[in-house]
Parts: sequence; C-alpha cells; structure tokens
Amino acid sequence: MVNILINGKEKETISVYDRGLQYGDGLFETMAVRNGNIYLWETHWQRLMSGCERLSITLPDKKTIEKEIALLCLNESQLVIKLIVTRGEGQRGYPFSNTQSVTRILSSHAWPNYPEYYQSEGVAVCYCETTLSENKKLAGIKHLNRLEQILARNEWDSDEFQEGLMLTTQGHVVDGTMSNIFAVKDNVLITPDLSLSGVAGVMRKTVIKLAKEIGISICEKQTSKAELEMADELFLTNSLFGIWPVKMLAKTRFTQIGKVTKLLQEKVNELGK
Amino acid sequence: MVNILINGKEKETISVYDRGLQYGDGLFETMAVRNGNIYLWETHWQRLMSGCERLSITLPDKKTIEKEIALLCLNESQLVIKLIVTRGEGQRGYPFSNTQSVTRILSSHAWPNYPEYYQSEGVAVCYCETTLSENKKLAGIKHLNRLEQILARNEWDSDEFQEGLMLTTQGHVVDGTMSNIFAVKDNVLITPDLSLSGVAGVMRKTVIKLAKEIGISICEKQTSKAELEMADELFLTNSLFGIWPVKMLAKTRFTQIGKVTKLLQEKVNELGK
Repeated sequence: MVNILINGKEKETISVYDRGLQYGDGLFETMAVRNGNIYLWETHWQRLMSGCERLSITLPDKKTIEKEIALLCLNESQLVIKLIVTRGEGQRGYPFSNTQSVTRILSSHAWPNYPEYYQSEGVAVCYCETTLSENKKLAGIKHLNRLEQILARNEWDSDEFQEGLMLTTQGHVVDGTMSNIFAVKDNVLITPDLSLSGVAGVMRKTVIKLAKEIGISICEKQTSKAELEMADELFLTNSLFGIWPVKMLAKTRFTQIGKVTKLLQEKVNELGK
Repeated sequence: MVNILINGKEKETISVYDRGLQYGDGLFETMAVRNGNIYLWETHWQRLMSGCERLSITLPDKKTIEKEIALLCLNESQLVIKLIVTRGEGQRGYPFSNTQSVTRILSSHAWPNYPEYYQSEGVAVCYCETTLSENKKLAGIKHLNRLEQILARNEWDSDEFQEGLMLTTQGHVVDGTMSNIFAVKDNVLITPDLSLSGVAGVMRKTVIKLAKEIGISICEKQTSKAELEMADELFLTNSLFGIWPVKMLAKTRFTQIGKVTKLLQEKVNELGK
C-alpha cells in the first residue's frame, strides 16, 4: 500500500533545504476521499491555484497529481489525502527564483474518528485568546504558516470543546482553528469576510454556492461575537466533517439544530454520494 | 567536512511529518562564526529560549548544540551556521503534546559576499508594499512562519536596493526583511517597538546594549516613515553584517555616515575580535 509520494516517489523524507521547512514557504490542501473519489477536488484545486498565484509558486501539473492521488486511494473506501506544495529547495535567504522546481507531497491519513452525534446534535465551541493577524496578501489561501492556529488550538485540550473561534485584535470573528463559521439570522446566511485574514475553506465555498442555489441570501461581512451569539442558527464547515451545528458557543446555548443548517447538511451529504 | 547535522546525525533529509514542514511549527537562528567562535552565541541562545517558551517547544540541550556547532566549524575561519528547532514529528492536525521530541537541524553555509563598501559607504533601502501583520504572541521571536518576509523581499530583484523596510497597515515601520532599523535624532537612538510585530534581532539587542554603555539614550517606540526620513543618521543591523549605514531611504539621501553610526560600528567590530 502506497501512503506517501514525494514528487512521485514513494519515500517519507525531504531535503532540509526545502523552503517549506525553512520558511513555511508553501501551501496545502486536506481532502476527503470516499469510494475512490476526491470530494470537492475541483474546489480544492482552484484554491491551490489561487494560492500558487498569490505566492508566485509554480503550479504543479494537475493530471500528475490526480494520478498520484488515485494510487494512494487504491482499495481504500474512506481516507484523508493531504497535498503539500512548497517552493522547493533553495539557498539560505528569502529571495527566490521563479525557475525553482516545486516540491509536491501527497500523503494519506486515517479518517478522523469524529463521533456521529457532532453532526446530528452539534458541538461546543469556545473563543480563542490567540488572535488572527491581518495581511491581505495571505488572507484566504491555505499556506504553511500556521503558528497562530497551532497556538489557538492548543489553548484547550479537553473534550469540552470541539473547536475554537479566532478573532482579530479589533474583535472581529474570522474563523475556527480548522473550520469556517456561519450564522443564520432572519433566514440570511452570514459568514465572516475573509479579505484580510483567515482561510477560505473549500466547504465554506461549497455551502455558499449551495445556499445561493436554494435561494438563501448570503452576507459576507465583518462579524462580531454578539452577532453570532444572537443568531438563530450557527454552524461550522470543514472539508472533512462537512457541517457541524453549534449547540454551544462559549456560554450561549442553541437549543436545537436549525432548519437552514439541516437543509444545508442534506445538500452537502447529497454531493458526497 | 561535516556541514549538516540533524539531531546529531550527518544527513540532509527530515521526515515530511515534521511539524516544521507541515505548519512552520518551529524557530531558527542564523549565526556568524569567526575563527571557531559563534559570534553573540549567548544572545542567540536567549532568543531561542524565549521562542521555545512562547511556542511551548521543548528547549534542546545547550551543551549538545554547542558541541555540534563546534563540529561544523572545524577548520573553518568564517561561515554562517543556521540552527532550526522544530516541534518534531506529529500526527496530522494542529494539536500537539508536550512530550514530542523536538528536531534540531544545524547547517553551515558560505559567508555571504556582501561588498565591504556597504559597511563603509552605506546601502540603499526601499519601502516594501507587503505589510507586516501584528500578533503579540509571535512578535519578536524568530519563528519559521516567514511568508511575509519572502513576499516583501521579492518585491525587488535589482541591486538598486540592499534591503526593504516593512510597515504595518497603520503605517508604522517595523523592521527590514532581514534586519532591524535604527535612527539617530538629536543624539537619541530610536528604533521601532517590536511588541506586536517584527523580529527582535540579536544585533539589535547588542547595539542597544552597547549604546547604553556609552551613554547614548535609547527610545523604542512606534516609528513613522517621516521620522526615519528626518533623522540625522539611519542604519540597519543584522547578525551577519553587523551595522550598515543607510545612505538612501526611498527618495531621501543621507549625505554622510553619522558619528553615532561610526562609533557603534567600531564597538560592534571590537566585539567580534
């Protein structure tokens, strides 16, 4: 069984001179594979393209990556595929040349053992103390500079919370450490604007598209804690778990899973079939 | 000749599961070695300690690292040693355990071929468009999340400029892509406050200490472009090049190297002897 491919070769090590390690100079995608299909592959690929463009990293060949993923998925019904693309090996120092050959790393991972009731009954979410910084050149893309998420995620280690929301220093909620947040208020779907900060999740994009298709109004805007706490419904999105309703946000309890949340869960689950 | 040691072993590759690659979850130090001595080693070590404490990364053993550096420096009169410390290998996902064993990477590099006249006649500096984000938990330490510096450094590729200064979105100058900035105004040494952003350089710390010893007042504060442009003297600091006077900042020309700059250059050079 092949579970890792680096530039097409089955090995587990890379050069220490790779800029991915030296500076976090790269991007990644974490993808769900079910019955041999990469769930939402085109959306993952679009985000990777946009990340490569923003960081001036040469985009790897799509067909090659598709073939390599197929190799990793052979005989597997459900697993996680992580793709890392770095700027490749380089000299010491920040300057790079556009002729550097990129490094692509594909690895397969076990499906996370999230309990089914997270989907059906909802999860509890806290606010993180670690803030998210703002930089419009890095906002939205899934780059390898993830220290803020690491510090935030490690603020709690109990099962009391399943996710933590991160805020800017100005108090705007941006996203969770590994998910995006949506609120429903008076039948409008609200989600934080990500033009200065955060990761624009593939499931977030999918949910926005599905909501539009079924005629739900969308509002991407600066969002405060109070707006989330006064919402009719709240939910989290992520490529692997899909949609998790939020039953508790800090001290605010949401009594039941809302109808918009349920409807979108159904639509997302249909996509996966 | 040994020029790389990973956890004490002479090899050039690390596991792709190392969190240094996966998330930029680590720290680094770039050090000057002259005649077998690591220049300002104690100051580098202190910054590494502070970084490890901030990120909850186990500090590697100092004596072991000193021995390994000595091995890399054998028979070399002048070189650069880079030390990377990562949180080590881990599972997919942001959570970490405090029992993970860290990865330490020591590599030697050729001394950069900066022309001598950068020191004696000064350099030209531009402003970068890429902004520096603010996060008090990450400010000051030399962590592996360096995409902002990479984007900034690659805004120019001519020899016209030797360094670029980075600003916050509020317009405060923080530091250069690979150096810190100092201004002299009415015999007071001014340097940007780094409590929210930037890297607190080892040479910066050394220059502040030397200045205090010779009775020069220091002011660490929020600094604007205008303040730098109206300064009597301007200079950059970095562990490898020491002090470079600034002869040109964007369109502002500084006609001669100031006396405070010269005095501090002499003091820094004496330390290296």
